[in-house]
Amino acid sequence: MQWLDVRSDTVTQPTPAMREAMFHAVVGDDVYGDDPTVSELETLAAAMLGKEAALFVPTGNFGNQLSLLTHCQRGDEVILGDDCHIVWHETGGAAVIAGVQLRTVASDRGVMDPAEIARRIRVGSDIHWPKTGLICVENAHSSGRVVPLAVMAETAAIARRHGVPVHLDGARVFNAAVHLGCDVKDITRHADTVMCCLSKGLASPVGSILAGSAGFIARARRNRKLMGGGMRQAGVIAAPGIVALREMTGRLAEDHANARALAERLAAIDGISLNLDDVHINMVWFALAPSIKVDGLMAALAAAGIKANPPEDGLMRIVTHWQVNAADVARIADVIAAYVTGGQ
Amino acid sequence: MQWLDVRSDTVTQPTPAMREAMFHAVVGDDVYGDDPTVSELETLAAAMLGKEAALFVPTGNFGNQLSLLTHCQRGDEVILGDDCHIVWHETGGAAVIAGVQLRTVASDRGVMDPAEIARRIRVGSDIHWPKTGLICVENAHSSGRVVPLAVMAETAAIARRHGVPVHLDGARVFNAAVHLGCDVKDITRHADTVMCCLSKGLASPVGSILAGSAGFIARARRNRKLMGGGMRQAGVIAAPGIVALREMTGRLAEDHANARALAERLAAIDGISLNLDDVHINMVWFALAPSIKVDGLMAALAAAGIKANPPEDGLMRIVTHWQVNAADVARIADVIAAYVTGGQ
Amino acid sequence: MQWLDVRSDTVTQPTPAMREAMFHAVVGDDVYGDDPTVSELETLAAAMLGKEAALFVPTGNFGNQLSLLTHCQRGDEVILGDDCHIVWHETGGAAVIAGVQLRTVASDRGVMDPAEIARRIRVGSDIHWPKTGLICVENAHSSGRVVPLAVMAETAAIARRHGVPVHLDGARVFNAAVHLGCDVKDITRHADTVMCCLSKGLASPVGSILAGSAGFIARARRNRKLMGGGMRQAGVIAAPGIVALREMTGRLAEDHANARALAERLAAIDGISLNLDDVHINMVWFALAPSIKVDGLMAALAAAGIKANPPEDGLMRIVTHWQVNAADVARIADVIAAYVTGGQ
Amino acid sequence: MQWLDVRSDTVTQPTPAMREAMFHAVVGDDVYGDDPTVSELETLAAAMLGKEAALFVPTGNFGNQLSLLTHCQRGDEVILGDDCHIVWHETGGAAVIAGVQLRTVASDRGVMDPAEIARRIRVGSDIHWPKTGLICVENAHSSGRVVPLAVMAETAAIARRHGVPVHLDGARVFNAAVHLGCDVKDITRHADTVMCCLSKGLASPVGSILAGSAGFIARARRNRKLMGGGMRQAGVIAAPGIVALREMTGRLAEDHANARALAERLAAIDGISLNLDDVHINMVWFALAPSIKVDGLMAALAAAGIKANPPEDGLMRIVTHWQVNAADVARIADVIAAYVTGGQ
Repeated sequence: MQWLDVRSDTVTQPTPAMREAMFHAVVGDDVYGDDPTVSELETLAAAMLGKEAALFVPTGNFGNQLSLLTHCQRGDEVILGDDCHIVWHETGGAAVIAGVQLRTVASDRGVMDPAEIARRIRVGSDIHWPKTGLICVENAHSSGRVVPLAVMAETAAIARRHGVPVHLDGARVFNAAVHLGCDVKDITRHADTVMCCLSKGLASPVGSILAGSAGFIARARRNRKLMGGGMRQAGVIAAPGIVALREMTGRLAEDHANARALAERLAAIDGISLNLDDVHINMVWFALAPSIKVDGLMAALAAAGIKANPPEDGLMRIVTHWQVNAADVARIADVIAAYVTGGQ
Repeated sequence: MQWLDVRSDTVTQPTPAMREAMFHAVVGDDVYGDDPTVSELETLAAAMLGKEAALFVPTGNFGNQLSLLTHCQRGDEVILGDDCHIVWHETGGAAVIAGVQLRTVASDRGVMDPAEIARRIRVGSDIHWPKTGLICVENAHSSGRVVPLAVMAETAAIARRHGVPVHLDGARVFNAAVHLGCDVKDITRHADTVMCCLSKGLASPVGSILAGSAGFIARARRNRKLMGGGMRQAGVIAAPGIVALREMTGRLAEDHANARALAERLAAIDGISLNLDDVHINMVWFALAPSIKVDGLMAALAAAGIKANPPEDGLMRIVTHWQVNAADVARIADVIAAYVTGGQ
Repeated sequence: MQWLDVRSDTVTQPTPAMREAMFHAVVGDDVYGDDPTVSELETLAAAMLGKEAALFVPTGNFGNQLSLLTHCQRGDEVILGDDCHIVWHETGGAAVIAGVQLRTVASDRGVMDPAEIARRIRVGSDIHWPKTGLICVENAHSSGRVVPLAVMAETAAIARRHGVPVHLDGARVFNAAVHLGCDVKDITRHADTVMCCLSKGLASPVGSILAGSAGFIARARRNRKLMGGGMRQAGVIAAPGIVALREMTGRLAEDHANARALAERLAAIDGISLNLDDVHINMVWFALAPSIKVDGLMAALAAAGIKANPPEDGLMRIVTHWQVNAADVARIADVIAAYVTGGQ
Repeated sequence: MQWLDVRSDTVTQPTPAMREAMFHAVVGDDVYGDDPTVSELETLAAAMLGKEAALFVPTGNFGNQLSLLTHCQRGDEVILGDDCHIVWHETGGAAVIAGVQLRTVASDRGVMDPAEIARRIRVGSDIHWPKTGLICVENAHSSGRVVPLAVMAETAAIARRHGVPVHLDGARVFNAAVHLGCDVKDITRHADTVMCCLSKGLASPVGSILAGSAGFIARARRNRKLMGGGMRQAGVIAAPGIVALREMTGRLAEDHANARALAERLAAIDGISLNLDDVHINMVWFALAPSIKVDGLMAALAAAGIKANPPEDGLMRIVTHWQVNAADVARIADVIAAYVTGGQ
């Protein structure tokens, strides 16, 4: 049986074009700067993200940590949302590798009040205070919410006023651009550096990009070595990354439409609560009425060949991607509707 | 002119008994474990704080950082209030020395909602998650607020349920006990370890105590060396610390009464806002009406021989201690009243 | 022009079989543990290296640093050779990531006197002393020298006696086994953990293996996430890694024979000094007489389509690999001989 | 019984003048910069050590670690002797706090070959390499050997040529100056920063000095807070430190003469080996013939009221200080001679 996997967009298989690209990739030793495919990817990514330079790294987590290490001195304070990936899902790495202090701001699925950010910036140089070294924003947030451009702009303005750089955790920044109906550069220009994943919705098997000024990327290249990320013939994974940027960014709207269609079907089911206004990208979150037996629902989905994660903290998530089409989401909705409204 | 210094209780001069104690202190090399005065202080402090063992350290900041280093593995997460001393005033040391990630909880002058603490404890062992290594509470809080025993107890119960230790930043824990009308042990039993300052209101010139289980203190003793805190004939500063614990803890009520008296006088002045219910210990915080010229007020105080800090974020703080008596606070109130209500 | 690249074995291109393997790789999300190709590689590598478990990591540098982080507590001391890769070529990462203190032993191209190692192990628990957390050996050493099994065994015996684990930086451990005429497990059994590169002489484009006990690898898997090394559809680079282990380990003897042949030709040239006994694996080091103009030699090599690194500290290195055959080394020898003995 | 304690000069009791100074010390809150006695000590120490500025710190270990933290970026490499205090006796703190990589040079009781230092400086900016951040020398070395001025000068010249700063661990730098017959500034001018202990031979109970340029000390003052070393009314221990610098530096020659006298007596005893040329300062090291029972000797010394450490690695050490006079050393020699040559 071929599973329909909607646990996350991290499960995406490489496309046939990506497999071809890996097969034919012209490669060299990238530590010597000899891999033309890596160079091509970095040049392309920098251009698309509107930055001077870019660096290929093994994972998004690696790219975020590398950014912290390169922006900050040990002991600096980093202002970021209390529900962001760096706080929640990076195994405490920020304190171990970069040695920075996280200073969190209340965040509503990625959206922070810029005034709260401003309030946390250390003004002056009291010796009791760490220096504010960086502000991090995440867009799209891993909850699927997109941060409005006005919020990004206001945050950037505050940061600039205090001479503090901004890092954008843009693991799904291309999804954010699609939702906002803007070029991705309209988002990234509100940040000094941006990390963007080539995997996830863009379907490349391995790798992320860290982009910024030429000087920053030169320092990051050295720190990438320190962190053990200097890969050799990395062109074999950069090649599908080029396909991801060239061919996959343009089709994300399709995933969003499928998520939207699924959300509309689910919202109509009695026993499921879901706010359609929260469906920004390729993720649908919904709550199940307490009467619905989770185990039964999971079994029904599995029996229909659908791989989904069970609810966490009462919320269930379904994620669309290039391997999920309109018929698939209809099928998912059918299975859930049948289970929830049926005899169970 | 002899200044009346009410900027903080950190400015306290050693008492004559403390100077005598320093003069006569029997000392030895404490790194060899040979200093009887240090040993006496550590034994006394452990007994008073209700812990198996105690360790003499150069500062309160040192004691807090040493506790983080000794409780946690690098990369662990520490849950604590967003207005606590470790977050605000320890120069980012937690990330540099202990390598821990700070996870803050909204805190109202030291009081955190235990449910919010519970929500941040990492349950299970997802590899994306840091381990929750410690919960920190601060009592009395540096704002002068005392955390109720019920909150301490509930926090401790949650911590115990999850197998997470609790550290008490008790820089002013004896003040807290006076306010609560309890023995200090009734507070410290809600924590596994406690740091308490011998300076501040207790007036010893240098040094703090870290107390906990015998095993914890043995490990902390080694880490104290690593952090450069293994002093030699430390008995000369432990001796006034003994005086602080024996003679000064009993008189803190006087400082609180003086602070209360000052607060009542100030509260009656038009142009000053002050909540009398917030005056728990030896600190009086108040806001000045915008019409009051800060520079003029500071000049008036200085002219009267009173050393005070100017308002920060609109709030002014006056702190009482053993060198401030009832007549002194009356004088301070007079000067302020004259300036605020007078022609200015 | 097709270059003949003998700068290092890190420059190796993937073989056609590897490209096929990437193309057809069955992949899944390895952070979910869903990638069958990664699992297959890890199982195969563990078996070949004689360890319970193995973990796929992006680079050899990453594998070494991950091993330090997983074996040691911060502040532990690591005993290792003063000419080893971790000291020389890992950008100081050991102090940043693992927070360990390096304690070096005089090393002759990777060979340390076990008695000198023993002398550096901290016996007892003086609080002035870091704990000895790990001993590292490198075999084959990056100079191309192979450490004798007797030295490995003696080092392991000392380590075991003191309860200190041993990590083997086995970036080229399969080359070492070929030189020693033994199974690679006869080397790795003298270490608790081993890092081995799938790139370099084995020609896989990206990736290395860290192997050890099941418990160690479980902890390393978590730390790999912390260091940003949790890749998604990593099967695409694990697949050529399987080819590397299955097909390329058996042919390393050919590289060694080519290196030997080259060394013999060079040793016969007047103006070149070279110790044939030092040629253990696929590397030939030699010194040029001062009369030989380096720039001219490099130009002559380049003109002949040979990419080589200029001498460092007076020594020049040529490295053979699967893309260098007997005719190639003859050609290299001809070019050098012509330049050195010719009119120049 | 009054013990005669010759285990170390760290055991020295404060002099009567020091106790007077503590008693009368004018103090203030040094974190506010309000302690005139601390300021006086820092000004005096800077002048005596020939540096622009100085900072009072709780211990020598603290001063060394603070210097590493202030000179270096995390990941930098520090070149230093393999028998120095930072490597041996600071609990691995350099990797934990400063996050620096130690790169050791073979050292003969503190004396390193400057050429070996030069060989370890990283020239150029290969991304595989840590940056050389600091060179440390120790004079007098904790073995009691004094490093010749010519070696200091040559080391400094090499460092300057490469733009690398030099830190002097001068825990006993005044002893070194006495042995060399020079002003202490003739030693310290070969280093950018110097740590010097006020305890040890100078007999102050607690505290050390870190001295350097004004800019360096400003940064160190901030880092001292980060490390928890910002003490409040530190004047009480700075006061005896002033006595130490004013009154005790001038009398160290007496300790050296007593050590010399003891050494000459011991050298004449059959069964004791001792090189008189190695007795530079206040320490006498000697080896006992295997026939001499260590336990018996220790018991004989204890019976005579002499507190000494047993031999380590076959060497026994006796240290003189202001509480050991000529008659005392004669008595020590008598007891040892009697035991060694007597019936035992």
